[in-house]
Amino acid sequence: MSSRSRTFTWEDPKASALKGQTMSGLDYLKAMSTGELPPPPIFHLLGIATMIANEGLVTMELPIGEYHYNPIGSVHGGVAATILDSVMGCAVHSLLPVGRAYSTLEIKINYLRPMTEALGTVIAEGRVINAGRKAAFAEGKLVDARGKIYATGSTTCAIWDI
Amino acid sequence: MSSRSRTFTWEDPKASALKGQTMSGLDYLKAMSTGELPPPPIFHLLGIATMIANEGLVTMELPIGEYHYNPIGSVHGGVAATILDSVMGCAVHSLLPVGRAYSTLEIKINYLRPMTEALGTVIAEGRVINAGRKAAFAEGKLVDARGKIYATGSTTCAIWDI
Amino acid sequence: MSSRSRTFTWEDPKASALKGQTMSGLDYLKAMSTGELPPPPIFHLLGIATMIANEGLVTMELPIGEYHYNPIGSVHGGVAATILDSVMGCAVHSLLPVGRAYSTLEIKINYLRPMTEALGTVIAEGRVINAGRKAAFAEGKLVDARGKIYATGSTTCAIWDI
Amino acid sequence: MSSRSRTFTWEDPKASALKGQTMSGLDYLKAMSTGELPPPPIFHLLGIATMIANEGLVTMELPIGEYHYNPIGSVHGGVAATILDSVMGCAVHSLLPVGRAYSTLEIKINYLRPMTEALGTVIAEGRVINAGRKAAFAEGKLVDARGKIYATGSTTCAIWDI
Repeated sequence: MSSRSRTFTWEDPKASALKGQTMSGLDYLKAMSTGELPPPPIFHLLGIATMIANEGLVTMELPIGEYHYNPIGSVHGGVAATILDSVMGCAVHSLLPVGRAYSTLEIKINYLRPMTEALGTVIAEGRVINAGRKAAFAEGKLVDARGKIYATGSTTCAIWDI
Repeated sequence: MSSRSRTFTWEDPKASALKGQTMSGLDYLKAMSTGELPPPPIFHLLGIATMIANEGLVTMELPIGEYHYNPIGSVHGGVAATILDSVMGCAVHSLLPVGRAYSTLEIKINYLRPMTEALGTVIAEGRVINAGRKAAFAEGKLVDARGKIYATGSTTCAIWDI
Repeated sequence: MSSRSRTFTWEDPKASALKGQTMSGLDYLKAMSTGELPPPPIFHLLGIATMIANEGLVTMELPIGEYHYNPIGSVHGGVAATILDSVMGCAVHSLLPVGRAYSTLEIKINYLRPMTEALGTVIAEGRVINAGRKAAFAEGKLVDARGKIYATGSTTCAIWDI
Repeated sequence: MSSRSRTFTWEDPKASALKGQTMSGLDYLKAMSTGELPPPPIFHLLGIATMIANEGLVTMELPIGEYHYNPIGSVHGGVAATILDSVMGCAVHSLLPVGRAYSTLEIKINYLRPMTEALGTVIAEGRVINAGRKAAFAEGKLVDARGKIYATGSTTCAIWDI
């Protein structure tokens, strides 16, 4: 049999999200980076290995696996979309003080080159371009270890007082 | 302990992709729907339950799970992006005869409403708007059982002779 | 000499915009349709001939001219972007009561087919997909007299109390 | 009477476009910059004052005028879309040798801040991120004289042999 299998585990995401509402975005993300708080399920689902959060700039590493593949023999576009959405959304989150929340209104992803397992680990970087009172804009890119770009992204987030 | 766990399995995606190159897109997708060919790993990763492929129109069902959650207590935007990318890309694929291939150049996703587990199963629909010689355009939407829209998408794909 | 020339006129846009703040969006757009209030300069710049505004649905007609051309012998992509931005933004505006305002956060335009003068007049339609408390989403399409689609668009707008 | 008026002139765009097909993209753009060949009508329509073309990087200056205004008292989003589409498309064009052509498949524009006449002249910059055999990707930004960003853009272009 040629079947492959993968098991992943996660913690209750609602408990973490509630704690997150009492922290600044940056503190919350740092607590997840260090393992003080459990990362969200999507990180385990996708296989995100590390996250580094700074003010307005978040990077994540993702080891590419066969389980990321689409029907046409390469990494599914949703993988790049998911990790770029993550780093861009977290970059916006990293700028929010306690009492402010955000949600993503839209993302756009451009696929510059196909990705395969041969890439090993890819790095996603999200950066805030402008954060106003009601909206924030961020951009992202997905590169390999040598800095070659595979995908780019842009996003608009709504921001408000809780 | 509050840890949750999920295990999924898949078959070698390169073997299927190679077979797919000898079939029309619609035949290939139908073979995956019926189980004649194994669905790609991403379907198992995300948890896609069913796919129905017609010419230029593909729908998929996804039961929402806690493992789809983001750091802020709702379904991660990458989930909608991944399934919308899937139905839109497959809708383009469904129009290609043997000897033609496609790749996704870009997607854009709008998030109209937050999604939670309470939704149960959501349905994604992808529809080709125009397919030319070098490019195809498709649109998609993600709705609940009552037809309420949670996300919309648009995509551009490159098309060429293998 | 082969030079061509075009002259257009407009009224003070700030005066109209101020009046608009005392009216519902639909009343304001209808007043511009009927000529009770002057249309904005951009309508004259682009050459928009007619506007019909309904709740959440706005259409405009644009006679294509040589003055819309780009450096590669067809209608510039900015023309479709401008009229689609107009019908989508106005569709959102048409749903706002007095005391509410909007601004456009992003647009995405897909170019399905090239446009030339031979098309005569094209029709742009903008339609609201969802309008919440903080954001509204609309889609648009640009068709010829026979309904053939040349471009599609999607937009996200911020909405707030003045 | 408070009516304002503007007159602009242009040359036959099809004649230039035909000449362009016998030149590299960069030579063609440079010839338009220096006035050796007439700029396309859209440049005159919008009011683009200058263009500087380099390999994969094109900038244009636009003095903002009242004639660019929308119905809600600021510069219409189509103005940023049109100039960003121009610099991004021309940046792609600048990389094409004789015998290769391009067309724009899609643009996405994010509006970071509103623009008014008080800005004076804005500068749009388009830069190619990746140019392959069948597709090219470019990004753009619109800034004021001090570098403050008002809008960003991304685009996908198809490329082919004539």
